Amino acid sequence: MNEFDLIEKYFNWKNLNSDMLGVGDDCALISIETQHQLATSVDTLIEDVHFPKNTSAHDVAYKALAVNLSDLAAMGATPLYFTLALTLPTIDESWLKDFSSSLKALSKKYDIQLIGGDTTKGALSITINATGILPKDQALLRSTAKVGDYIFVSNTIGDAALAWQQIQNNKKPNPKLLKKFNTPEPQVVLGQKLLGIVNSCIDISDGLEQDLSHILNKSGVGAKINISDIPLCDEVAIYIEDTYDWCLPLSGGDDYELCFTVSKDNADKVESIEKELDVALTKIGIVTENKDLEIVGLDKTCKSYQHF
Amino acid sequence: MNEFDLIEKYFNWKNLNSDMLGVGDDCALISIETQHQLATSVDTLIEDVHFPKNTSAHDVAYKALAVNLSDLAAMGATPLYFTLALTLPTIDESWLKDFSSSLKALSKKYDIQLIGGDTTKGALSITINATGILPKDQALLRSTAKVGDYIFVSNTIGDAALAWQQIQNNKKPNPKLLKKFNTPEPQVVLGQKLLGIVNSCIDISDGLEQDLSHILNKSGVGAKINISDIPLCDEVAIYIEDTYDWCLPLSGGDDYELCFTVSKDNADKVESIEKELDVALTKIGIVTENKDLEIVGLDKTCKSYQHF
Repeated sequence: MNEFDLIEKYFNWKNLNSDMLGVGDDCALISIETQHQLATSVDTLIEDVHFPKNTSAHDVAYKALAVNLSDLAAMGATPLYFTLALTLPTIDESWLKDFSSSLKALSKKYDIQLIGGDTTKGALSITINATGILPKDQALLRSTAKVGDYIFVSNTIGDAALAWQQIQNNKKPNPKLLKKFNTPEPQVVLGQKLLGIVNSCIDISDGLEQDLSHILNKSGVGAKINISDIPLCDEVAIYIEDTYDWCLPLSGGDDYELCFTVSKDNADKVESIEKELDVALTKIGIVTENKDLEIVGLDKTCKSYQHF
Repeated sequence: MNEFDLIEKYFNWKNLNSDMLGVGDDCALISIETQHQLATSVDTLIEDVHFPKNTSAHDVAYKALAVNLSDLAAMGATPLYFTLALTLPTIDESWLKDFSSSLKALSKKYDIQLIGGDTTKGALSITINATGILPKDQALLRSTAKVGDYIFVSNTIGDAALAWQQIQNNKKPNPKLLKKFNTPEPQVVLGQKLLGIVNSCIDISDGLEQDLSHILNKSGVGAKINISDIPLCDEVAIYIEDTYDWCLPLSGGDDYELCFTVSKDNADKVESIEKELDVALTKIGIVTENKDLEIVGLDKTCKSYQHF
């Protein structure tokens, strides 16, 4: 099978809106309305770096799109379209079929359209560039946290990091943890609901400590958070009871939950969103004038995830 | 150096328009006017597949952006912004400096802004997603060639393929050929000029025969071209005199010239553009009703470039 057959067979889904031109020409075309902005983000996943070698095609495809949807969620954007650059060592049709159907299912769920791409031969790697849309000047930035803001995170932190640690130690994580690691749910709806309510937002991909620090640095503020307030699932809570290893949730990464800051006045709106969406939103601290990140209850320094 | 330092040092150029938000948040943001469309394209270059192992960082960066600009050119789009997904085996600051400055120089030349990206560790690979803008419903498509159209190509064909063949045979190509292979000039201005004048267009990346066939297949037409009309530089002309190897220009690829079809009535406008831009535009054949590509003067079948 050559590249064009491959694209025609697996990636020309012919489900585009009439105002879009997708797979099959030199470029994809997108019309947009005024008073809106596009939000675009790119992420690469590489085998043996971002996912283990035996990860299923289904999970690889899911995660490659989910991490980009998570970036759109962190801006409050509504997913619109994405391009896919796929590097494959060989053409394995059974692998491609699973990859394609998983990618298609997730893209359908979040109504994001595949409009173009490139396939090349090499070590397995997936680069997705996802674009969303949102009302002009309403995006949830990292740079606009205010002193006195409450700091919230969605759901629980550290689940994926514990799964990854267990995989590395040749233990089999339980299905719930493995699901958080392989197929994290991007918080797209939550991000949209936070538009106009919160002051700043980021998705937690490299670890809570490092990602919250991005908000603080960009906003020129500090924060005080309490480790005992960080929401944990039972498995991570037990792990920490056994090991006191708070670095796992603080710097493990791969959570794809949202961390946001909100004024005291809007905190009740966060509570309403929590009830409406049935997603746990937990207050873990407060934004301070002092430009450090103080983690109350942590007596050591954690090593953050490094890309190199 | 960690990822954030790397991005800050080499890719946060802080030269964005005021209506754009680029490097440094979860997503890049882009506002656009109405009555326009965005055109977006993605291409991956991998070491040892798309460029030889000893290619300079300057040339790698140049080509990675140029091939995407060439896709925008083929639609007639004006370059607007791009994202960069860069996979590197190690952090080599001297390499990065050359890569960054070359990328920046070419992006400045074509007024295209780097608005986001991702860096990862792995075998050297560059994925660029470039986006341009153009008036609604005016894009130069592959699917709209008409029977009777004249077929044109820009400049000369086969230069890069000859350079690549010489490199593979451990010969040193002359500087002019090497320049066409390593740092091809994307036909951005030509593409823009062709808007509203030609019926279809493609950039020649995989070889004239294969790429022209894309126009024919998408348009449901055929073509008759004459090999003796294909414009060649002196080196390729001599090579063909020696070898009769017409497959080199026909299927060698990496030309990044434009191939377009134009009605007889508009052919004089092509002549005017040729003079205005000082770029050679050569008529090589005609679009036919018979759905084959007839290459007059070719007595064998060439093997097209295959991505796998």
